[in-house]
Amino acid sequence: MIQYKAPIKDIQFLMNDVFDFQQHYQQIPGGEEATPDMVDAILGEAARFSEEVLSPLYQTGDDGCVFNDGDVTTPKGFREAYGQYVEGGWQGMSAPVEYGGQGLPLSLGVIKSEMIGTANWVWGMYPGLSLGAMNTIYMHGSEEQKQTYLVPLTEGRWTGTMCLTEPQCGTDLGQVKTKAVPNGDGSYAISGTKIFISSGEHDLTEQIVHIVLARLPDAPKGTKGISLFIVPKFNVNQDGSLGDRNPVVCGSIEEKMGIHGSSTCMMNFDGAKGFLIGPKNKGLMCMFTFMNTARIGTSIQGVGAAELSFQGALPYARERRSMRSLSGTKQPEKIADALIVHPDVRRMLLTQKAIAEGGRAMLYYAAQLADHMMAAHSRDDQAEYDRIDDKLGFLTPVLKAFLTELGYEAANQGVQVYGGHGFIKEWGMEQIIRDTQIAKLYEGTTGVQALDLLGRKVLLGKLKSFNEFHTVVKDFIKQHQNRSDMKPMIKQLKRYLLRWRLGTLRIAFMARKDRDMVGAASVDYLMFSGYVMMAYFWARMADSAYSAISRDPSQADFYRAKIHTAEFYFDRMLPRAKGHAKMMVKPARTLMQMSEDHFSF
Amino acid sequence: MIQYKAPIKDIQFLMNDVFDFQQHYQQIPGGEEATPDMVDAILGEAARFSEEVLSPLYQTGDDGCVFNDGDVTTPKGFREAYGQYVEGGWQGMSAPVEYGGQGLPLSLGVIKSEMIGTANWVWGMYPGLSLGAMNTIYMHGSEEQKQTYLVPLTEGRWTGTMCLTEPQCGTDLGQVKTKAVPNGDGSYAISGTKIFISSGEHDLTEQIVHIVLARLPDAPKGTKGISLFIVPKFNVNQDGSLGDRNPVVCGSIEEKMGIHGSSTCMMNFDGAKGFLIGPKNKGLMCMFTFMNTARIGTSIQGVGAAELSFQGALPYARERRSMRSLSGTKQPEKIADALIVHPDVRRMLLTQKAIAEGGRAMLYYAAQLADHMMAAHSRDDQAEYDRIDDKLGFLTPVLKAFLTELGYEAANQGVQVYGGHGFIKEWGMEQIIRDTQIAKLYEGTTGVQALDLLGRKVLLGKLKSFNEFHTVVKDFIKQHQNRSDMKPMIKQLKRYLLRWRLGTLRIAFMARKDRDMVGAASVDYLMFSGYVMMAYFWARMADSAYSAISRDPSQADFYRAKIHTAEFYFDRMLPRAKGHAKMMVKPARTLMQMSEDHFSF
Repeated sequence: MIQYKAPIKDIQFLMNDVFDFQQHYQQIPGGEEATPDMVDAILGEAARFSEEVLSPLYQTGDDGCVFNDGDVTTPKGFREAYGQYVEGGWQGMSAPVEYGGQGLPLSLGVIKSEMIGTANWVWGMYPGLSLGAMNTIYMHGSEEQKQTYLVPLTEGRWTGTMCLTEPQCGTDLGQVKTKAVPNGDGSYAISGTKIFISSGEHDLTEQIVHIVLARLPDAPKGTKGISLFIVPKFNVNQDGSLGDRNPVVCGSIEEKMGIHGSSTCMMNFDGAKGFLIGPKNKGLMCMFTFMNTARIGTSIQGVGAAELSFQGALPYARERRSMRSLSGTKQPEKIADALIVHPDVRRMLLTQKAIAEGGRAMLYYAAQLADHMMAAHSRDDQAEYDRIDDKLGFLTPVLKAFLTELGYEAANQGVQVYGGHGFIKEWGMEQIIRDTQIAKLYEGTTGVQALDLLGRKVLLGKLKSFNEFHTVVKDFIKQHQNRSDMKPMIKQLKRYLLRWRLGTLRIAFMARKDRDMVGAASVDYLMFSGYVMMAYFWARMADSAYSAISRDPSQADFYRAKIHTAEFYFDRMLPRAKGHAKMMVKPARTLMQMSEDHFSF
Repeated sequence: MIQYKAPIKDIQFLMNDVFDFQQHYQQIPGGEEATPDMVDAILGEAARFSEEVLSPLYQTGDDGCVFNDGDVTTPKGFREAYGQYVEGGWQGMSAPVEYGGQGLPLSLGVIKSEMIGTANWVWGMYPGLSLGAMNTIYMHGSEEQKQTYLVPLTEGRWTGTMCLTEPQCGTDLGQVKTKAVPNGDGSYAISGTKIFISSGEHDLTEQIVHIVLARLPDAPKGTKGISLFIVPKFNVNQDGSLGDRNPVVCGSIEEKMGIHGSSTCMMNFDGAKGFLIGPKNKGLMCMFTFMNTARIGTSIQGVGAAELSFQGALPYARERRSMRSLSGTKQPEKIADALIVHPDVRRMLLTQKAIAEGGRAMLYYAAQLADHMMAAHSRDDQAEYDRIDDKLGFLTPVLKAFLTELGYEAANQGVQVYGGHGFIKEWGMEQIIRDTQIAKLYEGTTGVQALDLLGRKVLLGKLKSFNEFHTVVKDFIKQHQNRSDMKPMIKQLKRYLLRWRLGTLRIAFMARKDRDMVGAASVDYLMFSGYVMMAYFWARMADSAYSAISRDPSQADFYRAKIHTAEFYFDRMLPRAKGHAKMMVKPARTLMQMSEDHFSF
């Protein structure tokens, strides 16, 4: 069994040394509450809850949910853990005070979610999905809807879902068929079938609030005719108590590769009573307003997979003995040397470590931006909100796709460290692969994220957000280019940054003549962008580590390890970007020339 | 459900156009039997059996084996399928006539195994493991042992296993503890625990013949003190009938990530009667004599995973509709365009296709070498046998590791094509990932293969087999470098070949000063080698396709698709090798500098 241990020292390094969260919080409404003591207390409590309550439920949860005639029973212990979570007030930590939350910065919520999601991603999906519903209602609901639904969701007494996908469509939501017919009393009768609804039914709370995409009778075709509705499992009485059962029923749960403890439901809406949220026919737009924060949420799964798999692999590599080191026996008193003496085992461990820590840095950087965005929203400063949303929008497809792809790779490396034992369920290592696979699929596949990045964010955005991030990196390079300790990293970073710019311009140029160029280049472009971005964050971490060592040499071990990991990244991961750089500027020809009928004979 | 269809046209292309198997068979003893008609009949029958009998059992077999008090029940239908397999005489197809086989070339057996293993790898493991036991007895057994055990194994009436791994060791077999104590009558009492024994217990046959690594009482420590024993489940009477139950019992079966239908057994030997096979204390050497053919066997799993996942993904990409093509609507009469219009979906499909077909070519090339090796063995020409074994030994770690890594990637691409649906068991796509994961682990992990390639085969072998393969590719380049149609491929191939040579020399040079350089470079070196090797085979296939088109333009569609896939490979897969080239020549420093205690804080 893998026992999760929250990487508090690493989290504090990012919060204090790299990103100066204290100073950051002074600029954010609600930030004044996030004093160093408060932050420490929250980190400590979240760590304790994740380690002691959630981590032991990770492997047992793989037994899965049980479906019985519309009801879903979650794995043993999930319900009790959820009770403790609600009692601790965790769900509302970063939610607005006026609706029952504690009003702490969103970034603290991300850090809390990282711990929870690393210890037990599957359990974390229940409160995680609720956050999506809470966001929707907060951003688009009426005051009455907020009082009725948002408050109990924030308290964690109720949970929420997002009902988007239907059998015929997932990515292409313009094909949604679910109908919403006005009842005449301001409410709507919702009818249709939704699939892949995470937490659609469960036994953690008495009430479930569904956010549903559906079409009004007179709606235009396609994406411009979709509206958003609140559909509660139980109708809610005036006094907030639960009334009749609404005809929205779980028809079955899916048998999946992983995340067995998370219920993935087919939901049948049979004239269920729903309430319009946001303007008519603007449902998709409303959804997209917080797509960026949702995607940050999913990228956590990649970081968590890398961290947990690393935590599982490291002790095994230290304890398991196999062969002798090629550079001479290291432990002559033992029957064989420990796995960790072998360079290739170290390569796998360091790959996991570099992904976990590099990904965490990317995540926290994005979380700070999200704080600023929420601050702009609370100040009603739409221009500033849009400006930051653009910045964040450039990062999020990379975070979502790149970090989940790399997290999945890290989970695979963890199994490789175990050899054949990694394939055996008992050790828990293969479960991380199975559970992480979905991260590359939901909230938009890697391919969809890549099109979003290159097609929308970069090209349609006329390179604006690209240039902004580019400038951030360039400034960092300028500031440090004369330092001898950072020289090799800065040199590389400069070279890759240039290549990023040139590649982007070249693709933009080529895409003008051939629109298929965008799709052809997209995934390689995203992966290339991810490797360069992560290189920037590793350079920043190395820089902070150098500073910390000269400030206080007594803590040098931790910081030196950070520099070593950065050096590893530049030496043995960043060069992967070379292939992507080459492939992303190839014309689309070799993808498009084969006739559909000739793929197989 | 994925219905497997044997890629007969592609197999024939390799056999006839690329590798001229007819001419090849004229040089091989037993090859005279492999007439074109015979080959066609075998391909047809193997295809029919794989498609009609095995393919329908693939997904249902995922329900797994049932263990009950020492007995194992295989999934429904496995037993009946095995009966048909035995009836068809498939097990002895490439086995020597004098022991009940048909004496056909080994390569035909590989092609048969490819079809079986693609349709249902898990089922195929039962007869597949038997082949290992058959090889051992054929190469090292006494005439009496051959008559007693090899004949019924060849007929398929019995199956065999290889019992190597123990709880404390897998790769490092020097740690084997299982004991063999002489009984005084020429037999031995075998005691110990073996784990991960595929097909160790099952209900397909009445008898199971275990080949077991164990130590004699006076054996030297480590790898030089291990001997090989035959331990039958039932002792065999003089007349060949089954006698007493031997105390070798399955204690449990493993719960695994995949290959659920294959029993992975813990085997307890409690003074079981065994018979020495081969010379005392030379057990590991005996095992290694056919390691190369065993590894070819495992590499089939990579090719099969790519092929099956491609066959699953292609119809979905044609039928599922999502969004519109960026270069303009392709199917205006439909609600959306089919997935296959999108360049990135094509990239994934072509990646799968290039891996399956490129891997198949590598496999068949190696199979021809194996034919020559067996021919040398039957002529008792040890020098020639060793010469070819060296050649093959250079290829096999690449085939085993590179093709299983890429097959696994292809299986992942297949799931990506399906989006969220790929995660659902019903479609069968995620099962291919779970079943293929083990291919990267058993028969030596990717890391172990990489050390074997670089450390043993290349460096210890003083680059001899490397140079031989290098010359093969160089000759091909010379022969075709003035052809305008092949120009871009030849140019690339030349460049990568040079880089391979320079990289190899550089690693050899660096390793002289730092032995850890070998382990540090190994996996990148193997992957680089794999990409260049596959490029060579794609260039050969393109060459054959060009020739075929000019010979008979009426069949041009098939051959043109082949050229298109080759172009895709050179354009969008081969450049991945660049990163590996860069990383494989880095000093080991960034892997070794971190102290073991500083991996985590």
